[in-house]
Amino acid sequence: MKHTISVLLLNKPGVLSRVTGLFSGRGFNIESLCVAATIEPSVSCLTLVTHGEDNIIEQITKQLHKLIDVIKVVDISGTDFVEREMVIIRVKAEAHTRAEVLRVIDIFRGKVVDVSPRSYAVELTGSANKIKAVIDILKPIGIQEIVRTGTIAMARAKKS
Amino acid sequence: MKHTISVLLLNKPGVLSRVTGLFSGRGFNIESLCVAATIEPSVSCLTLVTHGEDNIIEQITKQLHKLIDVIKVVDISGTDFVEREMVIIRVKAEAHTRAEVLRVIDIFRGKVVDVSPRSYAVELTGSANKIKAVIDILKPIGIQEIVRTGTIAMARAKKS
Repeated sequence: MKHTISVLLLNKPGVLSRVTGLFSGRGFNIESLCVAATIEPSVSCLTLVTHGEDNIIEQITKQLHKLIDVIKVVDISGTDFVEREMVIIRVKAEAHTRAEVLRVIDIFRGKVVDVSPRSYAVELTGSANKIKAVIDILKPIGIQEIVRTGTIAMARAKKS
Repeated sequence: MKHTISVLLLNKPGVLSRVTGLFSGRGFNIESLCVAATIEPSVSCLTLVTHGEDNIIEQITKQLHKLIDVIKVVDISGTDFVEREMVIIRVKAEAHTRAEVLRVIDIFRGKVVDVSPRSYAVELTGSANKIKAVIDILKPIGIQEIVRTGTIAMARAKKS
């Protein structure tokens, strides 16, 4: 099962390496991982996506809790949450395909962030499914390069 | 000096841990890191931002090259590149501040991704500087939570 785990940790050398080490030590692959500072520069927020059986993921989150520089660990897969990622795709855009590329970008509410005579670099955000849909549509036109952030997630607020 | 390093690596357990270990072993802090699969599911793309002296960063990139599961390492700080990150900010939005919050979001071309009676969750993309500007403006209104991806980067294409 897919798990999205959110971790608050101290922004110090070595902490990230210990967190990733816990997963690799058990042979779990991290599908995607994002880490960056929060408003408080000494604290970072890490979001990771991994696949595994529920009980083993639970063991890993318990061990994460025990790490001295880890402040908070939440497996948000069980809750209602907003999940987004960003991708920059460089797609071939020659005279006869440019209009079609721009149409696709427009439909998915992307932004062109770099233009060259033969390509566009496009920024897109959305769920992993949406990003996959865009990639599938642009692939036949010719994707030259792709850089993606991986998923970040935030629990939804109570509606009442 | 700030360095943005882009690494292509095999999507296998343990590779990420070895890459982050190289930095922590030398006491370098990773300011932000993103890793996710590329179009080829067996290959991941990792972008990391760190600070350090040029010659030591050069040594680390050389050692990254030597790791068996690392395919390509580029320190793109020296080139012309597009740099973006995404952030989700939950900001207090009560009756008397809601209009102001929406105005700010609109100016920075953000999208509201979750609404509750007392808050909005907003998705924003841009350079680290732009994200900082948004955070500075929303802070007095009341930021409740923040999750960011960290920087991803792509070299600009030749213009001729």
